[in-house]
Amino acid sequence: MSNITKLEIIDLRFPTSREKDGSDAMNPDPDYSAAYVVVHTDAADSLEGHGFTFTIGKGNEVVCAAIKALEPLVIGKDTVEVFANMGTFWRSLSNANQIRWIGPEKGVIHLATAAVVNAVWDLYAKVEGKPLWKLLSDMSPEELVSICDFRYVTDVLTPDEAIERLHTKKAGKAAREQEMIDGGLPAYTTSAGWLGYDDDKIIRLTREAIADGWDHIKIKVGNGVDDDIRRLRIIRNEIGPDRKLMVDANQVWDVDEAIEYVQKLSEFDLWWVEEPTSPDDVLGHASIAKQIAPIRVATGEQIQNRVVWKQLFQSEAIGFAQIDSCRLGGVNEVVTVLLLAEKFGIPVCPHAGGVGLCELVQHLSLFNYVAVTGDLTDVVVEYVDHLHEHFLDPVVMHDGKYVPPKKPGYSAEIHRDTLERFEFPQGAEWAQS
Amino acid sequence: MSNITKLEIIDLRFPTSREKDGSDAMNPDPDYSAAYVVVHTDAADSLEGHGFTFTIGKGNEVVCAAIKALEPLVIGKDTVEVFANMGTFWRSLSNANQIRWIGPEKGVIHLATAAVVNAVWDLYAKVEGKPLWKLLSDMSPEELVSICDFRYVTDVLTPDEAIERLHTKKAGKAAREQEMIDGGLPAYTTSAGWLGYDDDKIIRLTREAIADGWDHIKIKVGNGVDDDIRRLRIIRNEIGPDRKLMVDANQVWDVDEAIEYVQKLSEFDLWWVEEPTSPDDVLGHASIAKQIAPIRVATGEQIQNRVVWKQLFQSEAIGFAQIDSCRLGGVNEVVTVLLLAEKFGIPVCPHAGGVGLCELVQHLSLFNYVAVTGDLTDVVVEYVDHLHEHFLDPVVMHDGKYVPPKKPGYSAEIHRDTLERFEFPQGAEWAQS
Repeated sequence: MSNITKLEIIDLRFPTSREKDGSDAMNPDPDYSAAYVVVHTDAADSLEGHGFTFTIGKGNEVVCAAIKALEPLVIGKDTVEVFANMGTFWRSLSNANQIRWIGPEKGVIHLATAAVVNAVWDLYAKVEGKPLWKLLSDMSPEELVSICDFRYVTDVLTPDEAIERLHTKKAGKAAREQEMIDGGLPAYTTSAGWLGYDDDKIIRLTREAIADGWDHIKIKVGNGVDDDIRRLRIIRNEIGPDRKLMVDANQVWDVDEAIEYVQKLSEFDLWWVEEPTSPDDVLGHASIAKQIAPIRVATGEQIQNRVVWKQLFQSEAIGFAQIDSCRLGGVNEVVTVLLLAEKFGIPVCPHAGGVGLCELVQHLSLFNYVAVTGDLTDVVVEYVDHLHEHFLDPVVMHDGKYVPPKKPGYSAEIHRDTLERFEFPQGAEWAQS
Repeated sequence: MSNITKLEIIDLRFPTSREKDGSDAMNPDPDYSAAYVVVHTDAADSLEGHGFTFTIGKGNEVVCAAIKALEPLVIGKDTVEVFANMGTFWRSLSNANQIRWIGPEKGVIHLATAAVVNAVWDLYAKVEGKPLWKLLSDMSPEELVSICDFRYVTDVLTPDEAIERLHTKKAGKAAREQEMIDGGLPAYTTSAGWLGYDDDKIIRLTREAIADGWDHIKIKVGNGVDDDIRRLRIIRNEIGPDRKLMVDANQVWDVDEAIEYVQKLSEFDLWWVEEPTSPDDVLGHASIAKQIAPIRVATGEQIQNRVVWKQLFQSEAIGFAQIDSCRLGGVNEVVTVLLLAEKFGIPVCPHAGGVGLCELVQHLSLFNYVAVTGDLTDVVVEYVDHLHEHFLDPVVMHDGKYVPPKKPGYSAEIHRDTLERFEFPQGAEWAQS
């Protein structure tokens, strides 16, 4: 038996806006940041749980304040008890008395929930001596369903049906696990097409991407149709007709505007259009999807919780589910959404990039393939080549694929000297700016 | 010309959980709280803008932290410029660079936006020497539309159409204003039916409510159908067949559960069922509405922004719109939603109670009747008799109706000694507990 003794909360920010990395039509100068948590216990093993949620700079301190508000719900908890009842633990945070009001299950408090929950899962996986994807993959259908909160989604998927569906995927699990270890998880890159880059940089990065084995390329759009057409033409010309090309509008359009705009891009054989409008507009996405077919709609990085996901699936609003490992309330809710996506047959292509999102989502997608879907059709996981050097167990890419992590945990741990140097505002990186 | 010099931020909490006031199936022991803001300027008139958002206790400090994050966007702003361009001002907060990520337009950061925006409107109305409802009612259709953000709602209502619709309501405005001053705004009460009250207290409070002139009574349900049937029987027996009876489930049900549960209450001739399920579940509400008709669905106190409101209207999910003056991003977004509700012909019956919500919503509903709808069919404004004594310009009720406020401002200002006594955790009320 060991108890959680402390949450160490760090407001971590990287000055990425200085290089325009990550710039898009909605977010011109993000400073990739993490509201970062270390779970300490009084166990003799001295293992720590590391977790975080991703933000783009200002406001990161508000998420840290929200983590602080959740701290009393965690301190003193027996880790054995927590690990054996992860569903109950999750509900105790996402549905906390009084605190629920400032969500519920959305925005700042849900981002904070994700950070804490991710840290606890990291610790759990370390204690079990497995990478998170393997820990999840080894759970029985009953165990998996027990970590999920089905509140508000039982009209489309009950726990019993979820268990049944998982049982049908047990055959072949070992083979799929080996397949992933041998061949890796398919990925795509956004590195070439940020809005702030000039044409020469786009051409150079696109050529590098092809040379590195990428078959799917995504660029940012939405700052003007003529500019987008020019950039799409450059890239389509570079990648040829067979590689997949996707665009990401980062929510800049209204519904009718999205339909008109995307129709003007029809010559480029787009595979998906990402975030065409507000992440809150389920019916809007459904309407856009209908009008721009066969181009498919993708969204997810700002889809707040499983209730909105449920509706996106119900209304046939999306062709790709870009679940976010930190926007949702951590591992438990992600698993719930994976079960929903499987039921509706929608491929999951997680949102990544930022800081550490690649490190996290590889675990979720590996688990999803091995234990939930058994199907890689149209599955690609986002990959962006930023900030991996700060992680103890960074992602490893090979021929455009994610190589499954082997170390115990959720690959979330950042080097101690990075935590000190980039802590805002007192770290050396910020104090001198 | 005068500039905003300071936001004074106060974490204000009332220990209402000691008396079980406000208890419901989801929120067993709320401490009614406000993340409270005073806008100070360097103007010679020494007027202050007071505003707040409502929470139920823990987490209020997180909202205060979010207000602090918005402060740099407000300090130094010229008030004349701000008042002349309230739409631009609103967008500068709700769509702030980097900060937008931790919403967008939802949860903690949107609650904080509401507090700041409400305070600025209070100041604006004081400077103009008018109560807020009158300030809004005197605006031209063009001015009103200019304060709204139509982003993400133009597929159902464009600014031009909104202006046209408002023009058609100009006739009769003066008469409706006089009607309100003479007769007041229709209201209903929730005072009698909190879940924590015993039967004797329910009977006593129901009789008092009838004696005070109330024709609409609402009670909390959701803790078990037998218990609810017993309490509904008591109250229906007391109020007779003609008075309206409504129930509020505070989101405790899943979709199918809500339908089954409400069908078991059919003998009580319910007027509405409030918050049957998750506030995020547009399609769920639509499904419930279809199944429980002619009982109508009401929701709103946790509807996060105009985008979700738009969809509730589009999908015929609700029969009553219970807009919240603080959950939405303050006056500007409320006006946008009032325009949407008018277009779809849904009566607006604002959420009130808590601390100060009655003080705010009376302004919004008076304006809505005078300038937007010209129609009182099925319109009742919630009223709860709590905490009004702390306000400089508290609501005045007469025969179950709100008497229109006359003092300049948004009626949001709380006595200075209350702000000191109930400030958390250092105020006298908390320091001794």
